[in-house]
Amino acid sequence: NVRAIFQPAEEKIQGGALAVIQDKGLENPKVEAIFGLHVEPFLPTGCIAVKSGPVMASTAQFTIRVIGKGGHAAKPFECTNPISVAAQIVTSLQAITGGMIDPLKPGVLSVTTINAGTIFNVIPEEAAIQGSVRSLDESTAGAFPEKIENIVKGIVSAYGADYTFEYNRGTGVLVNDEAMTKHVQDVGRKLLGDGAVHDYVGTFGGEDFAEYLLHVPGCFFRLGCAQEGIEQESLHHPKFNPDERALIYGSAVLAGIIAGFG
Amino acid sequence: NVRAIFQPAEEKIQGGALAVIQDKGLENPKVEAIFGLHVEPFLPTGCIAVKSGPVMASTAQFTIRVIGKGGHAAKPFECTNPISVAAQIVTSLQAITGGMIDPLKPGVLSVTTINAGTIFNVIPEEAAIQGSVRSLDESTAGAFPEKIENIVKGIVSAYGADYTFEYNRGTGVLVNDEAMTKHVQDVGRKLLGDGAVHDYVGTFGGEDFAEYLLHVPGCFFRLGCAQEGIEQESLHHPKFNPDERALIYGSAVLAGIIAGFG
Repeated sequence: NVRAIFQPAEEKIQGGALAVIQDKGLENPKVEAIFGLHVEPFLPTGCIAVKSGPVMASTAQFTIRVIGKGGHAAKPFECTNPISVAAQIVTSLQAITGGMIDPLKPGVLSVTTINAGTIFNVIPEEAAIQGSVRSLDESTAGAFPEKIENIVKGIVSAYGADYTFEYNRGTGVLVNDEAMTKHVQDVGRKLLGDGAVHDYVGTFGGEDFAEYLLHVPGCFFRLGCAQEGIEQESLHHPKFNPDERALIYGSAVLAGIIAGFG
Repeated sequence: NVRAIFQPAEEKIQGGALAVIQDKGLENPKVEAIFGLHVEPFLPTGCIAVKSGPVMASTAQFTIRVIGKGGHAAKPFECTNPISVAAQIVTSLQAITGGMIDPLKPGVLSVTTINAGTIFNVIPEEAAIQGSVRSLDESTAGAFPEKIENIVKGIVSAYGADYTFEYNRGTGVLVNDEAMTKHVQDVGRKLLGDGAVHDYVGTFGGEDFAEYLLHVPGCFFRLGCAQEGIEQESLHHPKFNPDERALIYGSAVLAGIIAGFG
């Protein structure tokens, strides 16, 4: 039996894989191996990139609200300026990836939005900070929420402000199975040639295919879609321009994986 | 001769006084003394508060734009996150009033808005900071722009970002003339009684009446408008609720100032 899953809601946090699993997409009959592919604009058409172990990151989003005390800009001593507090938090959050986690199990923390206040002469009541956290290691990924909240709690308390903290984990680290990865590599070498099978460079991008791999051994690999002479930009970029002949190579490799499997 | 000026555009930065002066409001015949009054919700009706020297602050507004390099939240090392840079700037700006100016010639610097980014997984290109600066001393007021820009320049350069800096001064320090202040105090004591003439507590609020006092000796004083049993809130507050009988006392004092002057 072969089952094709067309990936839903990949770009949403947590992705559609969880819904597929909940809807018994991996059962009746039980799925015994799973393979996924993703175009790669910086790899030539006709090539794949594949590696066992962690290759895509666990992701999470957080929102911190600093609740201060607003008032007149002329009287900061009667206020608790949430912008000053938020600035200290943003600065201190850099300390997490800057030294509070094992650099061999790295993580990324990016503050991506900050918003407070509307006018020159009024100290606002609140400041909101949002950001994204990623890691290729589950223990590092699991350590972030507490480390972030400890920093928020400490700084907010230093200034006499208050806070709310929301942390939403997306999918976990995407970990390719060793045997399944070897199978993809073998098929790739046979169909595309030795030189066409590259090493997958891990990134801190997230991918909900990770969820399937928690239940079923499998492998997620990259499919080259760069054609010489066609300008390429990264995924999600408005100028992303895949070579559509990549479809042929992708189909061939998937068919080869199935044929070699039974 | 008596000239009444009904103050235009007081709440706008720079205020309407400059326009009155430009339109020759202090000439033909030349104005030789000028007096202004302002309601005060925390002083009982029937009282005034008055003091010679600086009583209201010079004001200014600033806007700082930090120009970084945006990109994917998973790749902060390929970006220059303007939020991190802005956070360092906000924190460092506190050092100006915290130790870089003479505490006997104090100033106030309040960061009142910060805005950057729109979404969890994108590091934005820019961060904008706005704020307000006030001082009761002209030398302190004059020192702020350079001190602010030095901090911005240094931090932005440390991170390899860029910036724009805009600084708009409003009116200067409001300085009451000593002889004119004594005249208001004498009139107040005669008309309202000894106990009704209070000392004016200086604030970091701004007031464009300051502009007139650069050309003409005069005095700006506070007129009590608090009635026992009527809940009071500060000026500009939606619950500000002046006792309208203050009008009688204000008119009486202004009339007394004129009568005693000729």
